[in-house]
Amino acid sequence: MPEFTAAESAFMERALSLATQGQYTAHPNPMVGCVLVRDGNVVGEGWHAVAGEPHAEINALLAAGDSARGATVFVTLEPCAHHGKTPPCIESLIRAGVSEVVVAREDPDPRVNGKGLKMLSDAGISVRCGLRKPEADALLAGFLSRIERGRPFVRLKIACSIDGRIAMADGQSQWITGDEARADVQRLRARSGAIMTGIGTVLADDPSLTVRDSSLNTHGGQPIRVVVDSKLRTPPTAKMLTLPGTTVIACSNDHKGRRLVDAGAVLIRIDGKHGLLDLSAVMSQLALLHVNDLLVEAGPRLAGGLVEQKLVDELVIYQAPHIMGSETMGMFMTPGWTELGDRQALHITETRRFGDDTRITAVPAD
Amino acid sequence: MPEFTAAESAFMERALSLATQGQYTAHPNPMVGCVLVRDGNVVGEGWHAVAGEPHAEINALLAAGDSARGATVFVTLEPCAHHGKTPPCIESLIRAGVSEVVVAREDPDPRVNGKGLKMLSDAGISVRCGLRKPEADALLAGFLSRIERGRPFVRLKIACSIDGRIAMADGQSQWITGDEARADVQRLRARSGAIMTGIGTVLADDPSLTVRDSSLNTHGGQPIRVVVDSKLRTPPTAKMLTLPGTTVIACSNDHKGRRLVDAGAVLIRIDGKHGLLDLSAVMSQLALLHVNDLLVEAGPRLAGGLVEQKLVDELVIYQAPHIMGSETMGMFMTPGWTELGDRQALHITETRRFGDDTRITAVPAD
Repeated sequence: MPEFTAAESAFMERALSLATQGQYTAHPNPMVGCVLVRDGNVVGEGWHAVAGEPHAEINALLAAGDSARGATVFVTLEPCAHHGKTPPCIESLIRAGVSEVVVAREDPDPRVNGKGLKMLSDAGISVRCGLRKPEADALLAGFLSRIERGRPFVRLKIACSIDGRIAMADGQSQWITGDEARADVQRLRARSGAIMTGIGTVLADDPSLTVRDSSLNTHGGQPIRVVVDSKLRTPPTAKMLTLPGTTVIACSNDHKGRRLVDAGAVLIRIDGKHGLLDLSAVMSQLALLHVNDLLVEAGPRLAGGLVEQKLVDELVIYQAPHIMGSETMGMFMTPGWTELGDRQALHITETRRFGDDTRITAVPAD
Repeated sequence: MPEFTAAESAFMERALSLATQGQYTAHPNPMVGCVLVRDGNVVGEGWHAVAGEPHAEINALLAAGDSARGATVFVTLEPCAHHGKTPPCIESLIRAGVSEVVVAREDPDPRVNGKGLKMLSDAGISVRCGLRKPEADALLAGFLSRIERGRPFVRLKIACSIDGRIAMADGQSQWITGDEARADVQRLRARSGAIMTGIGTVLADDPSLTVRDSSLNTHGGQPIRVVVDSKLRTPPTAKMLTLPGTTVIACSNDHKGRRLVDAGAVLIRIDGKHGLLDLSAVMSQLALLHVNDLLVEAGPRLAGGLVEQKLVDELVIYQAPHIMGSETMGMFMTPGWTELGDRQALHITETRRFGDDTRITAVPAD
């Protein structure tokens, strides 16, 4: 494990901060930030803004100009060694004459995966790896999940009352949480490659599932909308089919799907049993569609299924200070859990107020 | 409104702090603290420890001895003017020759209610009222509720999962929360004049509802146990009937009650309709039994009934980081709430961690 100085750690912290500038636009590429330092001074900064446009390293090299020669490069992810939509960054770094490269972590993409660092080293450039890796891992959770596990990082968002209810029994659920919490959900949506819901929510609420907050610059893009709809009950008149962006419907039987395809939907056929889709297979398909971060905004059936099948990586619960009582819908339908021991333990990672509501972020504890 | 100096405010803060020494033992009397100050120095302190024993003022006068002459008395509640189990404090204060009395608030007890302050004033002692009244009111919430509203301050405690579930459908509920949360419940019990539960909980769990933490000195006393049991289904073999202290059973029909009376229960007959007790009438009866603070530890039926009937003054929710799912019992049964607008808005007054659990304290917002 290489040693790093406090100053080096601060430069990488800056690079991590720059990386987040791409949080609403870089996907499906990873967010990456880069800082060039010469004689202790920052001579160039860059981040990866939009897939297909220059990578963070290139932007930093452009900002530094001739000052890049002899500089140390702090970059949050191993530079790419392959020709993608842009030429490999490694070549540009070597050509610019940098003397040293410090990376937070290797790129697990099999086209890179240590090759970038080796090429730099072979070119006589000093290379160190592992500075602020935990922060880089957290930043890249979605990208890493897709590359390493073949499925997106699954974030389940639920708005509920203090007694864990999400809607009245007849579906009434508007305005459970306040403005600040709903604005935060817009940010969650904007950083997600796709937003998933269940057919129950589509039929009850006819949701849009779009990023509507114009202060969140997504470069005009919208997350893919995903409906889990085993029996293809989505009406061709569903609002989301009329909105900009792609709507994917995961079904187990697409023989009635023509009208939905005509209405603009992309149908994915997944095997199912007992009328339930194999949710794990849906996730694999979404990874193939380059979804890094999946936000699930669903009713108790899909939320419960995902929790039961251990497919949730993070829960984001917006708890409103209300008692809604018993004539309502709960958060999770878990017909298979009949013993106290079946429950899912959580580890709460953050609790934060948004207006009158409390946002609880948690991860499964086992 | 009299003016007070910062030093005077600090002396009253000390008196309030002393008052809390009686939190587990003073009831049904109010917690009261008293500080005697002469020439800017504290010359005596006292609090009311146990009903029937000397009041805070007397203990402070005893501590001060001759130094009480010419002193200023800071006391959290208007001194008593009547003969109760002990002689009136007013007489002792006058006899001791104090020159001034500062009180946080008047005593609403009709036997006092300004008479004490007038007697002091008539005796030539300077009197000011209202220093740190909000803190005194909070400290005396139970006592004030009983005197002014004729019912106890009702604190509803619920231990639940993050999805608002309190037990499995078959009643399994042990160990939902951890040690620290359960230790805190012992403190809640110790400061309560009575602990209420419903017949459902008695039949499912056969609870003790006692203060078992020996570090909480209740002078050997136990809160009154109250079972809401319209049809007298409590078994005469119920564990709580064998334990030290009083068990009160509130019922709408006591004709089968002889066996329970023989087993040691006190039966209170309350009118009911549709098999449901008039919970407001139960509260009035408990006030007549001198219960200031009532802690409710109940299942969804009684908890829901109390919330629906606006009889809850404070909720204390211990939320464990678990998902329990749908095959479970919710927190509140509220058959009358069918519209979103029926829900009860809350104001969260405190959120605090106890081990892995979160304690949410809230009051009804309307």
